Amino acid sequence: MAISPSSISLEALDLDPAFALHRGGKLEVRSSVPVRNADDLSLAYTPGVAKVCTAIAEEPELASDYTWVSNVVAVVSDGTAVLGLGDIGPAAAMPVMEGKALLFKEFAGVDAVPICLDCTDVDALVETVVRLAPSFGGINLEDISAPRCFEVEDRLRDLLDIPVFHDDQHGTAIVVLAALKNAARLTGRSLGDLRAVVAGAGASGVAVSRILLNAGIGDIAVSDSKGIVHRGRGDLNPVKEALARDTNRADLRGSTEEALAGADVFVGLSGSTVSERAIASMAPGAIVFALSNPTPEVHPEVARRHARVVATGRSDFPNQINNVLAFPGVFRGALDVRATTITENMKVAAAEALAAVVGDDELSADHVIPSPFDERVAPAVTAAVVAQARADGVARL
Amino acid sequence: MAISPSSISLEALDLDPAFALHRGGKLEVRSSVPVRNADDLSLAYTPGVAKVCTAIAEEPELASDYTWVSNVVAVVSDGTAVLGLGDIGPAAAMPVMEGKALLFKEFAGVDAVPICLDCTDVDALVETVVRLAPSFGGINLEDISAPRCFEVEDRLRDLLDIPVFHDDQHGTAIVVLAALKNAARLTGRSLGDLRAVVAGAGASGVAVSRILLNAGIGDIAVSDSKGIVHRGRGDLNPVKEALARDTNRADLRGSTEEALAGADVFVGLSGSTVSERAIASMAPGAIVFALSNPTPEVHPEVARRHARVVATGRSDFPNQINNVLAFPGVFRGALDVRATTITENMKVAAAEALAAVVGDDELSADHVIPSPFDERVAPAVTAAVVAQARADGVARL
Repeated sequence: MAISPSSISLEALDLDPAFALHRGGKLEVRSSVPVRNADDLSLAYTPGVAKVCTAIAEEPELASDYTWVSNVVAVVSDGTAVLGLGDIGPAAAMPVMEGKALLFKEFAGVDAVPICLDCTDVDALVETVVRLAPSFGGINLEDISAPRCFEVEDRLRDLLDIPVFHDDQHGTAIVVLAALKNAARLTGRSLGDLRAVVAGAGASGVAVSRILLNAGIGDIAVSDSKGIVHRGRGDLNPVKEALARDTNRADLRGSTEEALAGADVFVGLSGSTVSERAIASMAPGAIVFALSNPTPEVHPEVARRHARVVATGRSDFPNQINNVLAFPGVFRGALDVRATTITENMKVAAAEALAAVVGDDELSADHVIPSPFDERVAPAVTAAVVAQARADGVARL
Repeated sequence: MAISPSSISLEALDLDPAFALHRGGKLEVRSSVPVRNADDLSLAYTPGVAKVCTAIAEEPELASDYTWVSNVVAVVSDGTAVLGLGDIGPAAAMPVMEGKALLFKEFAGVDAVPICLDCTDVDALVETVVRLAPSFGGINLEDISAPRCFEVEDRLRDLLDIPVFHDDQHGTAIVVLAALKNAARLTGRSLGDLRAVVAGAGASGVAVSRILLNAGIGDIAVSDSKGIVHRGRGDLNPVKEALARDTNRADLRGSTEEALAGADVFVGLSGSTVSERAIASMAPGAIVFALSNPTPEVHPEVARRHARVVATGRSDFPNQINNVLAFPGVFRGALDVRATTITENMKVAAAEALAAVVGDDELSADHVIPSPFDERVAPAVTAAVVAQARADGVARL
């Protein structure tokens, strides 16, 4: 077996504070019960553990009460679409998944385990997660490339009776919808009044489009690298074909920039750029969410010259669209009631609760979405998800 | 989707302290780095995490330095051979795997994640663990029934370059060898002087037999439910056929009890019983390890009438043969040097170090093995495993 000594000086890398912080990883597993002596051990392990195992074997639902499973989420990735870095593989994806797990715990008390899988085939991913499922109360899919991510999530939702949630899709969609609701509130409009352009038809673009349709947006045009998605375009995969049927009632053709003329809302999820001229061509009171990271589709200060509300994915500008505003509370709520799934209604309810955290007295063009460190957020999202899960009949508790 | 309300009163179950302790599970995942504000978040998550991911993508070995992977062991079971309870399935196995994970942390600072898999086919188990492997620094297989466990472990050892260790086999074998070495030391004999009978040819029986052969035992006869394993017996699976070739040089036939006549050592790993008469028929100075739990093959007080040294698997009698004496230190050592595998030499070295913890002044018939709470144990085993990994050329550090 090959033993390869490192050719890199860790000391040099650790001069960078990000490397220094990551040294040795960011997570640990701890006992939540005391193990001080033989008596403790005889309860937590043999012989005491045997009667708990027997009880669960006889009444499987007791696993939720007497194991940690009902509070544990697997953060599952195949490393194919990590941040803006692309297909860097499972080992290199681990720091992101660890970070995600850390956020689950810090923001909502959810225990999360990063699982980076050495397979990318849809069948293999689905099969593996199904086999893992007895160990987890929920599955957070992460950084799996489109369009595979859609099929992986759909199939897992069908096969499992625990929540399955692809955060790149739905976390983004929830936060975008919340911010858009507040931008509309600020400018005295309803979603039905708004015509939107979504640049990007990957995981987040598709999910944002879907939640905006669910929430009753006036019309929406989605574009990919080939231009606006419309009926009859010959090069669409099945997910985009479905989008073509459900969006673009105006039957626009051409580029993203052409679609922006007169539009009320721009949501950039594409990694491409949009010119100042195109932003200037939008309707008065325009809302611009330039969410590509680290480089927004248009610089927020440039966009602000023409738009009423501007948001980015960055923490160094106002209105950061950050998934951490959604996923901790979504899973906290779903786990608290042992939901069998996360419904579309639950996602919309999460967005509404997130929007409502920003009171009328706080709402402004530079504050349409709460800060990630606003401690009201996770409880508000949790409560909304709990109530909606019960209303939708998917709560076990 | 079916929602099944519980028919059981948790309050009634929780009157039992074992259930009360297990309520909500026994583990949690925590951040090991601070996340107090946006600056911390920008290092632990985006944007800071991106450069760590990029570095690992370019130099994969850096995953060991900058993720938690190099300190995390997966405790993997399919729930087919849990304690003495048998095939109770993955959900009901979880309390044992959580307990194991807790022991890893408490005794050796190893982070461990319980993974109960919903598959029992050998190919499926191997394939799943291979896919999971980028997330872990080692694989502890647990409570997988024989003979599948042998093939699962063998194939994973071939396929993976991280330690794979079936604790039911090798943990037991290491502790039995350590106790036997000390029993021989106490009675002034060497292992080569001893003729042993091992009752049970499942996971632990096979592994104990193998480590005793490696350590130079005089002769050994292994028995299963059909009697003594010998060459030419028509009903042997491949693992037992190999045992028939390597053991029983005296070519004994018949029952376990018949084999005990004149034997020096009895190791019971069978769940069956052995009569007092059979124990009485052993050679003078006999060594009896009646390890079935919770009911030893022969009551230790009965065995003590005829044997010089008696050990059991129970904490309420002297000389408890407990795997927790081995696996924490074995993995601690293997992870510390990023061993690519755990060699047979490393197991024997662990046993020797464990035996040596009991000093000459402490050694007695009722103290041939340290207590699980003896704080010298894990460091001693760790150091021995580290040294042997380096000697065997399987250490990366």
